[in-house]
Amino acid sequence: MPTRARIVNAAARLMRRNGYHAMGLNDVVSSGRAPKGSLYHYFPGGKEQIAGEALRTAGQRVTASITTTLSAGGEVAENLRSFAQLLADDLERSEFRNGCPIATTTLDAASDSDVIQSAAAKCFAEWHDTLAEWLRTRGHSATDAAELAALLVAAFEGALLTARAHRSSAPIHDIAETLARRLSL
Amino acid sequence: MPTRARIVNAAARLMRRNGYHAMGLNDVVSSGRAPKGSLYHYFPGGKEQIAGEALRTAGQRVTASITTTLSAGGEVAENLRSFAQLLADDLERSEFRNGCPIATTTLDAASDSDVIQSAAAKCFAEWHDTLAEWLRTRGHSATDAAELAALLVAAFEGALLTARAHRSSAPIHDIAETLARRLSL
Repeated sequence: MPTRARIVNAAARLMRRNGYHAMGLNDVVSSGRAPKGSLYHYFPGGKEQIAGEALRTAGQRVTASITTTLSAGGEVAENLRSFAQLLADDLERSEFRNGCPIATTTLDAASDSDVIQSAAAKCFAEWHDTLAEWLRTRGHSATDAAELAALLVAAFEGALLTARAHRSSAPIHDIAETLARRLSL
Repeated sequence: MPTRARIVNAAARLMRRNGYHAMGLNDVVSSGRAPKGSLYHYFPGGKEQIAGEALRTAGQRVTASITTTLSAGGEVAENLRSFAQLLADDLERSEFRNGCPIATTTLDAASDSDVIQSAAAKCFAEWHDTLAEWLRTRGHSATDAAELAALLVAAFEGALLTARAHRSSAPIHDIAETLARRLSL
């Protein structure tokens, strides 16, 4: 993998776990096995630029995994359970460190950086639109699909947050069951 | 207000906006108008101990505001709208900095600190139990109340997150409407 991509991936990994402020550029360099001095060559905008690109890359990966899970066919409830399982596996394998790759940085840095805020907003909008499109193919009106997609994004984000607080993946499985059972999806 | 409480409140304000890692102890001292050197007198456990106490204090305030809003009587939908309005007002008055006082620190530090993890988990559990108790008084079974309370916590947390990403309080009002309309509360 080219140096530039390794840097972006290293930043995404670090920000997913501890957010923007905890990320030192030395950690990015060593975790990305990048030559010292290469950071400002590839990223003249420094840490903020790296963070924006890392969010975009991480967000696209989540979009791809939403699309794969939902296009597997089958019942909506089954799709939600599969997606919950993916999130829970990531959390458990990382000892409850790898939650949403966008949320931590959104909360700790989006208020202070337009670059980060704009990248985070685009990720959430992309996930929302992907889910809304899927719900339309399942027969929901555009209005219903948009409303339900916003609830799905919020509920899974909230479940990932409480899962990290409790160091348990139960909230993620539970939310998928609740959504599948209580909403007319 | 005594020095100790001013320190805890200052930490809670700072962590609410940018999380644990961005909080410098010098900022806590100056924002809390505390004498230099008083930190380790009151908090021999240092920054981690201050953070744990700040989370507990902030969590109790949220519990109190949930209780006040929900005990106002009236329709469930109306109660949810009032709570959403409270959250939205806080966000707007702070230029979208004051979101959930627990979420940022949970995401950026709970994986690395048992003190923070335990304090955060207690806050989420307390909010959940307060909401579940309220739903039981509205006629839900214990099982239903517990499940719906978990969804309410997750959905409002997720909405607060996307509200900060979009710098808009619309997601908070929208989630209250969606929950009120789509769930049999």
